[in-house]
Amino acid sequence: MCVVGTGLIGTSVALAARRRGVAVYLSDRDPVAARTAAALGAGRAEPPPGPVDLAVLAVPPSRVAAVLAERQGGGLARAYTDVASVKSAPECAVLATAPDPSQFVGGHPLGGRERSGPLAATAELFHGRPWALVPHAGTAPDAFDLALDLVALCGAAPVVLSAREHDETVALTSHVPHLAASLMAARLLDGPAGTPLLAGQGLRDTTRIAGGSARLWADILRGNAAAVAAVLRALNADVSALVAAFDALGDADGPAAAAGLATLTDLLERGVAGLGEVAAPRVDGPADTVPVRVRCPGRPGELARLLAAAAPFGGNTDNAAVTAAPDLSGRAPRDVGADVGAGTGAGERVRDPGAAAAGADAVLDVRFAVPAPTAAGLAAGLRAGGWDARAEPSSSPAIHAKKAVADARRSPDPVRP
Amino acid sequence: MCVVGTGLIGTSVALAARRRGVAVYLSDRDPVAARTAAALGAGRAEPPPGPVDLAVLAVPPSRVAAVLAERQGGGLARAYTDVASVKSAPECAVLATAPDPSQFVGGHPLGGRERSGPLAATAELFHGRPWALVPHAGTAPDAFDLALDLVALCGAAPVVLSAREHDETVALTSHVPHLAASLMAARLLDGPAGTPLLAGQGLRDTTRIAGGSARLWADILRGNAAAVAAVLRALNADVSALVAAFDALGDADGPAAAAGLATLTDLLERGVAGLGEVAAPRVDGPADTVPVRVRCPGRPGELARLLAAAAPFGGNTDNAAVTAAPDLSGRAPRDVGADVGAGTGAGERVRDPGAAAAGADAVLDVRFAVPAPTAAGLAAGLRAGGWDARAEPSSSPAIHAKKAVADARRSPDPVRP
Repeated sequence: MCVVGTGLIGTSVALAARRRGVAVYLSDRDPVAARTAAALGAGRAEPPPGPVDLAVLAVPPSRVAAVLAERQGGGLARAYTDVASVKSAPECAVLATAPDPSQFVGGHPLGGRERSGPLAATAELFHGRPWALVPHAGTAPDAFDLALDLVALCGAAPVVLSAREHDETVALTSHVPHLAASLMAARLLDGPAGTPLLAGQGLRDTTRIAGGSARLWADILRGNAAAVAAVLRALNADVSALVAAFDALGDADGPAAAAGLATLTDLLERGVAGLGEVAAPRVDGPADTVPVRVRCPGRPGELARLLAAAAPFGGNTDNAAVTAAPDLSGRAPRDVGADVGAGTGAGERVRDPGAAAAGADAVLDVRFAVPAPTAAGLAAGLRAGGWDARAEPSSSPAIHAKKAVADARRSPDPVRP
Repeated sequence: MCVVGTGLIGTSVALAARRRGVAVYLSDRDPVAARTAAALGAGRAEPPPGPVDLAVLAVPPSRVAAVLAERQGGGLARAYTDVASVKSAPECAVLATAPDPSQFVGGHPLGGRERSGPLAATAELFHGRPWALVPHAGTAPDAFDLALDLVALCGAAPVVLSAREHDETVALTSHVPHLAASLMAARLLDGPAGTPLLAGQGLRDTTRIAGGSARLWADILRGNAAAVAAVLRALNADVSALVAAFDALGDADGPAAAAGLATLTDLLERGVAGLGEVAAPRVDGPADTVPVRVRCPGRPGELARLLAAAAPFGGNTDNAAVTAAPDLSGRAPRDVGADVGAGTGAGERVRDPGAAAAGADAVLDVRFAVPAPTAAGLAAGLRAGGWDARAEPSSSPAIHAKKAVADARRSPDPVRP
């Protein structure tokens, strides 16, 4: 393999390949960058003795076609790929200027770090990350296979797309998010004096990616201008509607205020739904859980003791729900612990007027919703510690609680049994 | 102390107070919530035997004044505070209806979690976090002092503001960021099929807080409508300008495209600057670093060996810069490792045309910029391992490199020596 361009991405690809025993030849128009990468173990900073299988052109999007023409002219490799974060323009230029476009398949690995340069490179940069592969109509199957091999070598997951699909998608998943972060961060310049003092993790997360190099991102974004413009236009419509909604809300109650509230609520709900589209898959699916039910005296500290006793066997606050002991209320349990909502300020209280206002030492009904294999061990372990615990076969109130805990774990909206 | 409302915030406050030996009496209109909090060790779910020092009203903003009037009427405490995430409206209502407003000081702890309810509470929720204190003109000094005691008890940092400053600030640091996240997340509903496959950490961070309960956040946001509207209007202006800029960029080169690029670049730079306003302080200030200089042979793998040898003594890729050995180029070193930019795609290469294209085994000049106390140990440790290493007194090229590394660590923009 040959890596042309030993920045963050090129050097990381080379390190991953070296780790799998592939011979790697490095090149960069900056000889010190190539030597640095070699000195890090990424390969040899010299031309290969003969044609290599695959050349990875880790150069800026505007340079891909020119570098391909030059290297292909010298017979560097049997196949070529790139790593540019936009695909339409480079592909277009390649099709126009490459000696043999069939040897080329576009690529875009979605790993990255805030820092760049060979010193920041690691062999694990792409582990478990998506790697877009963008063959054009004339890409030879052998070239595509070699690019697939590279993706596998780097531990990444190939996602095959057309150049246009790719550019539209990254406009949405990478480019406009960068702009959204910049737009929000730019507002901070006009803020009151106390702004830095009240900044929290939510703000930092929302604005984090605004920290990327302005010049580099201007280049990236202008390289995908049409696709970005389309998403921005839709965003603009939503923002304008929101401004009108908040103006209406500020104007006391009445039909305008109600319409404003509806607009606002609709946007928030669409945000929740949109987030659900891209949620990272959860490791523990909630579907196959069994409730382990424990009757816990309501004495101060007793529940904390129970949680400590349950922890080694898999019971914890994430899978627990606390309800009134059913013989007090005679109603379906509702989950106190499953309320999920925004963090700051007082959360919503779930009220169950049917629950008797029993004394402070009334029994609490605690259910741990754990995977079936864990349930027997948890119940037995708690019983050995003196707790009144048993794994329950599914029954209506237990399913209710289990589903409520599972839904709460998965979804930010409160669950009403 | 009395905590009225044992949700996430109220129970966490109670747990923090209990940990410091304060007697805490808990109350909630849902008796099971109060018993759950008590069972977690947050206090006793019963009325106090007599007036307490401080009552924390951990109830929704719209309930603060009513609960205060009720509890103050019963002589519950010497002082009262709340935790609502907006302050103007509750303060207004308190001033209008409280039997004795001088006993009241508004408060807003900025800790939180996606989950809510007493089971999600922890005593450490507010450690190191800001806690806004909002005394009104008539707040008694004793009441303010008691609220300050509470903040200290919870390990938080008090930030004293007026209600109006508070609401304008949280509009910027919490409320509009939530809307920005929702606006971006809502776009994902209209995305191409591949959208979830190419989603990465940048997108997830930018949209994470959009997952909060739509209903809860609609309530929070409408409670701060005027301040939110002001920020949104400015955001709207920026978005509209961006749409025009991208339309211009999509239309080939020319004056409109140049103007579009200028608008885009200006927004990105304002984003970088805005982010700098709220950056979390770095633990290691870069100001007092001393360069430890090592001449490292450029053989494959040698730099990796050096980094491994330096690690136990404090040298690593975060504080290292690699340059051409100066006797080859005769020019000021530029830092290969200090390029910082966006992660995906090829990073920018720093070119130094003055550097001779030496052979692959030419020597690399590595400088570790470490705090002065560390420098001697690093140099000595490396020499003991056979490396040509020494700590340097400040000199012009070393300052250059040190500053470049330090600036790179601090700021995302590339540094050009």
